[in-house]
Amino acid sequence: MSVTDQLLENNEKYAAEFEGPLPLPPARGVAVLACMDARLDVYGILGLEEGEAHVIRNAGGVVTDDELRSLAISQRLLGTREIILIHHTDCGMLTFTDQELTTALTDETGIEPAWTAHAFTDLDEDVRGSVEKIQTDPHIPHTDAVRGFVFDVATGRLREVV
Amino acid sequence: MSVTDQLLENNEKYAAEFEGPLPLPPARGVAVLACMDARLDVYGILGLEEGEAHVIRNAGGVVTDDELRSLAISQRLLGTREIILIHHTDCGMLTFTDQELTTALTDETGIEPAWTAHAFTDLDEDVRGSVEKIQTDPHIPHTDAVRGFVFDVATGRLREVV
Repeated sequence: MSVTDQLLENNEKYAAEFEGPLPLPPARGVAVLACMDARLDVYGILGLEEGEAHVIRNAGGVVTDDELRSLAISQRLLGTREIILIHHTDCGMLTFTDQELTTALTDETGIEPAWTAHAFTDLDEDVRGSVEKIQTDPHIPHTDAVRGFVFDVATGRLREVV
Repeated sequence: MSVTDQLLENNEKYAAEFEGPLPLPPARGVAVLACMDARLDVYGILGLEEGEAHVIRNAGGVVTDDELRSLAISQRLLGTREIILIHHTDCGMLTFTDQELTTALTDETGIEPAWTAHAFTDLDEDVRGSVEKIQTDPHIPHTDAVRGFVFDVATGRLREVV
């Protein structure tokens, strides 16, 4: 039995106790952008309930065009006003360089990736840069409540960077 | 008090009961790619625990270069082997067209977005297309366990599309 099949069995239990549907716009008007890391249960970390916040995640919790797209849609079409950015300690993105991964993939497949990895060497610096990218984007209208944090995977605690 | 400040208070409670740290690689070897919609608590829907799966999310749960980046990093650097893709009923991405949003943003700001919205008109079709994009990407090595679902926001149940 694949892991996916096991998780689908879990979904049967979830559906059996499910109370829905909830409204489409996030009830608390917040969008969270966090790393995809398996140890970050964003709902748990922030005490969120279903229906309260948009959750955007990717490798590193970085800000590329795709995150600017999601944030613009979140604010303009679905009314969110605050943004919470979360990086975390012990992140995989601290363990390699963009060039290393590009070279490895190109050597192996003969095709250079269309993307760069967006690895980083300093968590706080990348949080600050990510917040700045959001605040200077012309298509994200509400940027007075953009705050950036580092989640400590050893303590479960968020530390504010900016 | 901002919503962010309220959520930070929740984090104090989470940290007080936190037991960590867990290892970096996802224990169940799965990456989930889902829509950012506030009603999708991916950990709840799939019965996931902290440390078990990468979770990637964006507006629509679509596959752009940034999701291919995250999935490639997930598989190549952190050992995941299965991919679960989740779209959902009542999705905001069914309510407008790419051109409508591009025109509105350009008219309002004078600057055309660098991204397209990736709106869609048919959930199942977009799930199928997204799975195909992943399966044909040269930099994602494990594509024999890529499965696509639609989450029903009224019942809490996942329906398999492909």
